[in-house]
Amino acid sequence: MMDFLEEPIPGVGTYDDFNTIDWVREKSRDRDRHREITNKSKESTWALIHSVSDAFSGWLLMLLIGLLSGMVKSKQTDNQKEVADGMRKYILVHYFDSFSLIFSDNCGLSFPPLKSGSLAGLIDISAHWMTDLKEGICTGGIWFNHEHCCWNSQHVTFEDRDKCPEWNSWSQLIISTNEGAFAYIVNYFMYVLWALLFAFLAVSLVKVFAPYACGSGIPEIKTILSGFIIRGYLGKWTLIIKTITLVLAVSSGLSLGKEGPLVHVACCCGNILCHCFNKYRKNEAKRREVLSAAAAAGVSVAFGAPIGGVLFSLEEVSYYFPLKTLWRSFFAALVAAFTLRSINPFGNSRLVLFYVEFHTPWHLFELVPFILLGIFGGLWGALFIRTNIAWCRKRKTTQLGKYPVIEVLVVTAITAILAFPNEYTRMSTSELISELFNDCGLLDSSKLCDYENRFNTSKAGELPDRPAGVGVYSAMWQLALTLILKIVITIFTFGMKIPSGLFIPSMAVGAIAGRLLGVGMEQLAYYHHDWAIFNSWCSQGADCITPGLYAMVGAAACLGGVTRMTVSLVVIMFELTGGLEYIVPLMAAAMTSKWVADALGREGIYDAHIRLNGYPFLEAKEEFAHKTLAMDVMKPRRNDPLLTVLTQDSMTVEDVETVISETTYSGFPVVVSRESQRLVGFVLRRDLIISIENARKKQDGVVSTSVIYFTEHSPPMPPYTPPTLKLRNILDLSPFTVTDLTPMEIVVDIFRKLGLRQCLVTHNGRLLGIITKKDVLKHIAQMANQDPDSILFN
Amino acid sequence: MMDFLEEPIPGVGTYDDFNTIDWVREKSRDRDRHREITNKSKESTWALIHSVSDAFSGWLLMLLIGLLSGMVKSKQTDNQKEVADGMRKYILVHYFDSFSLIFSDNCGLSFPPLKSGSLAGLIDISAHWMTDLKEGICTGGIWFNHEHCCWNSQHVTFEDRDKCPEWNSWSQLIISTNEGAFAYIVNYFMYVLWALLFAFLAVSLVKVFAPYACGSGIPEIKTILSGFIIRGYLGKWTLIIKTITLVLAVSSGLSLGKEGPLVHVACCCGNILCHCFNKYRKNEAKRREVLSAAAAAGVSVAFGAPIGGVLFSLEEVSYYFPLKTLWRSFFAALVAAFTLRSINPFGNSRLVLFYVEFHTPWHLFELVPFILLGIFGGLWGALFIRTNIAWCRKRKTTQLGKYPVIEVLVVTAITAILAFPNEYTRMSTSELISELFNDCGLLDSSKLCDYENRFNTSKAGELPDRPAGVGVYSAMWQLALTLILKIVITIFTFGMKIPSGLFIPSMAVGAIAGRLLGVGMEQLAYYHHDWAIFNSWCSQGADCITPGLYAMVGAAACLGGVTRMTVSLVVIMFELTGGLEYIVPLMAAAMTSKWVADALGREGIYDAHIRLNGYPFLEAKEEFAHKTLAMDVMKPRRNDPLLTVLTQDSMTVEDVETVISETTYSGFPVVVSRESQRLVGFVLRRDLIISIENARKKQDGVVSTSVIYFTEHSPPMPPYTPPTLKLRNILDLSPFTVTDLTPMEIVVDIFRKLGLRQCLVTHNGRLLGIITKKDVLKHIAQMANQDPDSILFN
Repeated sequence: MMDFLEEPIPGVGTYDDFNTIDWVREKSRDRDRHREITNKSKESTWALIHSVSDAFSGWLLMLLIGLLSGMVKSKQTDNQKEVADGMRKYILVHYFDSFSLIFSDNCGLSFPPLKSGSLAGLIDISAHWMTDLKEGICTGGIWFNHEHCCWNSQHVTFEDRDKCPEWNSWSQLIISTNEGAFAYIVNYFMYVLWALLFAFLAVSLVKVFAPYACGSGIPEIKTILSGFIIRGYLGKWTLIIKTITLVLAVSSGLSLGKEGPLVHVACCCGNILCHCFNKYRKNEAKRREVLSAAAAAGVSVAFGAPIGGVLFSLEEVSYYFPLKTLWRSFFAALVAAFTLRSINPFGNSRLVLFYVEFHTPWHLFELVPFILLGIFGGLWGALFIRTNIAWCRKRKTTQLGKYPVIEVLVVTAITAILAFPNEYTRMSTSELISELFNDCGLLDSSKLCDYENRFNTSKAGELPDRPAGVGVYSAMWQLALTLILKIVITIFTFGMKIPSGLFIPSMAVGAIAGRLLGVGMEQLAYYHHDWAIFNSWCSQGADCITPGLYAMVGAAACLGGVTRMTVSLVVIMFELTGGLEYIVPLMAAAMTSKWVADALGREGIYDAHIRLNGYPFLEAKEEFAHKTLAMDVMKPRRNDPLLTVLTQDSMTVEDVETVISETTYSGFPVVVSRESQRLVGFVLRRDLIISIENARKKQDGVVSTSVIYFTEHSPPMPPYTPPTLKLRNILDLSPFTVTDLTPMEIVVDIFRKLGLRQCLVTHNGRLLGIITKKDVLKHIAQMANQDPDSILFN
Repeated sequence: MMDFLEEPIPGVGTYDDFNTIDWVREKSRDRDRHREITNKSKESTWALIHSVSDAFSGWLLMLLIGLLSGMVKSKQTDNQKEVADGMRKYILVHYFDSFSLIFSDNCGLSFPPLKSGSLAGLIDISAHWMTDLKEGICTGGIWFNHEHCCWNSQHVTFEDRDKCPEWNSWSQLIISTNEGAFAYIVNYFMYVLWALLFAFLAVSLVKVFAPYACGSGIPEIKTILSGFIIRGYLGKWTLIIKTITLVLAVSSGLSLGKEGPLVHVACCCGNILCHCFNKYRKNEAKRREVLSAAAAAGVSVAFGAPIGGVLFSLEEVSYYFPLKTLWRSFFAALVAAFTLRSINPFGNSRLVLFYVEFHTPWHLFELVPFILLGIFGGLWGALFIRTNIAWCRKRKTTQLGKYPVIEVLVVTAITAILAFPNEYTRMSTSELISELFNDCGLLDSSKLCDYENRFNTSKAGELPDRPAGVGVYSAMWQLALTLILKIVITIFTFGMKIPSGLFIPSMAVGAIAGRLLGVGMEQLAYYHHDWAIFNSWCSQGADCITPGLYAMVGAAACLGGVTRMTVSLVVIMFELTGGLEYIVPLMAAAMTSKWVADALGREGIYDAHIRLNGYPFLEAKEEFAHKTLAMDVMKPRRNDPLLTVLTQDSMTVEDVETVISETTYSGFPVVVSRESQRLVGFVLRRDLIISIENARKKQDGVVSTSVIYFTEHSPPMPPYTPPTLKLRNILDLSPFTVTDLTPMEIVVDIFRKLGLRQCLVTHNGRLLGIITKKDVLKHIAQMANQDPDSILFN
């Protein structure tokens, strides 16, 4: 391996855009750097301080990422006055802060960094305000959303807490009334109009400023973490535009969530912060460790689940995840979760996205409906992936893809028009999920809790099963319609050119299905408590079934079906409820869902999108099961011309330049002689071009007839011959080799585990061919009966 | 890679005892097996069923492991009658069950398997009973321990719940009184006597029946999981003897815990259950996946922390941990935790070992004492490891090691004699920790809660800080003495020839230190609440400081210092408290402790014991930081004779047998010819010997002058020459090679990640040498200035 520290030629050792990094080389470079610092640290105190600060820079970086990613949610306290004050302070301080952060120099972080944690909080509070803007405006202060507007009011009681004179719907503002068909039409019209405006702004901003800001970002982050380079994907502009458009997209009422994009936002923060630390700026492998931790912090703030976030990063996103990264991710995720809580100005908020507390234990028999929900989740997952991918492929291949703005506007219009009449579609999806997860208490005024004899409880505080009232029945119908709408519209929404996450829509679908089944079970148990399946454990008047738990299990099942997460999904859900009790139902549903979905299609949605986009991602989970050998995959194929090689001491600069111009290979093996085909090393095309150019410019007398030497010592040259060019320093002297009879399963394993870019193939000690990562991916695609040309990049 | 399915010669592809497995070969074999089953499954329904059952056998195995490892603890309900009934039933059913399980055929598990979950429960209940036997006996039923004896009694009130007429101390039984110095001496004498008896039984049983049952077992399990073979270490006898002697050792009052050995017991269960499944019995790599999950289940039951168990297995124990194993470990850990709870006959018991609930939030300033506890933990960890390793080395190298029974008896006698007069050393260590973690409530009668004005609270239910009473001061002194005793005696206890875990003693040391500091802080805050550091957050009469939390943080710090666990430690502790709040103090302490301990010595106790025993364990966490090359490590060295190779088509049986008898290498490279040194493949010594023996026995006419061919086709032989022996089927055609200039850091990485046994070294396409795992380990030891000959096995 060459030593970059001795003779640095600018550019050598870097990568082109849309290329794969060589993990072995990057890690080797980092170890060289570390070794140098350690050696120097013995020389002077200053170097020692440098070495210590270098060792702790990783932790400092994690701290900063955690702080920056923190603060997503802001919920209410019971004390209304306090809220209103907090609100005003909050908006002023944090809006200012966030913008000053974004537009200031990346590295000039002002202390205390705690204040800069408000980025995600900004997203959340703006989205709330804008969502309500579609329905009306607060005359008590235009910057208040509906909820905060009424808290600030003196004219409301607890029961009517969302009706107050300060809050005016659009019909009240325009035609001064809220009654009658015309007012309804005015409100309807304004709702659709605002939705279209938000969507238009979102898609235009994305299109003009940062095309990479669209989608959930998780497929691309997975690819980047596996060692691919996409310049700008985690940059400043992507961060700014994604943050703004995410708010707009969520506010427009489209069927999308902000949790997935938050992972992208957290990774952008991580990447930008990396620029402040030499150790991470210059090394692609080290930077990816930081990004893994940033992804964990992103999930941690999105769901308020630090352990779940770390496991999500480990299971779903990361590729190279050493134990040190596990520990650091955990740290970053915790800091993020605590920042979120500490700077929350509304006090006693819960850390988690959907806080649920159930009181009734579940019965073994209930595993049957839970497994049914798992099957539903698996079916929906498989169906969603198939149809969504088919639609995205159509977008890619037909004229449709050329009009992203029109597409977004059409989908937004349809969503808004269909959503307005139904209160469950009109409310934001996360509110809907909250309501579905909720176990009905005595004070709940929701339609879903409208049971007969509500206030007629036998014992104080206990809520027995009751017959459903009119409200519940109408809610059931509305939920069924919501379910159909969400199922259909999400397929067309995910993949459009706006930021869009999948967690929330998937969970909503599952939660609705679960709640429907839960209420059904509850009523069945109430009316038929003498049935054999019920009478052993569910006596009349007892509280046997918790429909909220069914909603939660359904949400886990659907999310599992779409993403194929397993442990991390269960742990995230466990952190939401906080009780070990409900892990078994969640696990049963998640497992069933994964098995059913896997039976219908092997890939999760992120992997499917990676394949759709042709990214060179080598899946670490799938075993390669075919019995092919390295010789079946290597290039050149049997009837092709021989492998292009360089010799170590007989080619001139001109010869090499001819080889470079005639081929497009990204690297060339160097051999002792063409006859023996004995391998010496491997040289990268990019390094070769840069070095020859550099030599022609600087080194005296290097001309086209100069001989290039890759050997350690060049032989004495006769006089009057042009000076030689020594290139041993760019030669990789330890290229990986396998024999031609190595099974591909082992080759795939080596590529995965060592993170190789290419591998040379020998037969009985002679060089025979080369296998690149792209060849491996093409071969895997071919063996799975897919189009091998779908792999696009190197 | 050879195909073992076509021509199976018995013994080919297996390993000798104390040898390292080849992960690549094992995984390759499993893939071959899997491929065959999948192909066959298309042929007939029966084969399809076989294929499905094969796919699910892993899950079934996890279920069984979980069930079997479950059930550790058994705590009381409030209903005394129920307890007594449950108790009797429990003892009868579970004793019978456990023994029938152990002595029945391994694979003849009777259904329902739920009943067999009682193995760990047996350990727990027997240990309780025997611990109390040292103090007295229950006349109401000899099988009751002190606590259960008095529950069963009609003569006690809640306050005096441990004093009842049925429970007789030894002095009461022997001299009919419990008063006076003589009674004290009788009790003292009986206490020491019983302790000696238990210890003698334990050490004798271990010595006679199962020498592998001693110690905590975690170092050996780590080594086994990394790919080493120790036959019998996870066998039936080890399981039985370890289970019995663990009870005896814990009961003898020695300073040891049962949590570490429980991991060993769970791994034994896993290994024995593997014999019932072809897939796992025959494949060393697959079996190690199961053992990783079993270790997770073991920790899960030991602490009641399923997620912590999985992370422990991932972070501390496992070597090869694919995502599939993560998911399965999680499943096994959950099943284990739920079995533990479900078959617990005492009802409403908590899942966790030490359940704690704190009510007071911690203040940022308290991080200072928490970090101090971290420093203490790190210092104690480093001190413990150094002194314990020094003592164990002395035991190994001097006469001391020859008298294990005497050593155990002496240590037991000293422990018992010093322990009896002090109530905190007399009680079992886990009870002590429970008491130290406990936050004082109104009803607590412990001396630690003897504050002045206890019942004089200002508000109902709130417990403000109070001045310490006489009881607290005397408890402080006793605890300080306990701390010194535990610190000293644990050093000599761990490593003796009895089952001994380290978790509980380390936690006890930390918990005592933490409680002492916590009470100190509490009194400081009470008497000096006007100091600047206190007056901002701790007003007079408020409850500012929770000494129990300090004990917990101290326990985490000491455990972290000894084992160097990080994430898993914090998660286990988090699962004990169940509140995200206290993660930050725990993390601060755990991190400080790890940093301090790492600064004083790089290895954790398990790694230190691995090195002491010379096991070939290639640490996955440490980066190899030196700048050596493969040529510096490979054999032969510069002045040695050339590498011993076989040629592919020119050696006779006799030649090969000479090579085998003259060398001790465990494998030989096969080359085209000695002149060209071009590598063809690699053949293992064991396979070669077995194949030649087999051929001489069965194949007609193979004699000493027969030529051995490793080529695909043997050339036509002239008449009257002896028949040739074709051995291509045992030749590994894809040996791993590196060049001589490959940095050792990359070689170490390859060995770790691919799990190699050996790697060949080439220079410019010619075979030059070989590096084995042992060479790599010796080189690492040498670079770390350690004795390279400490690596003992292959």
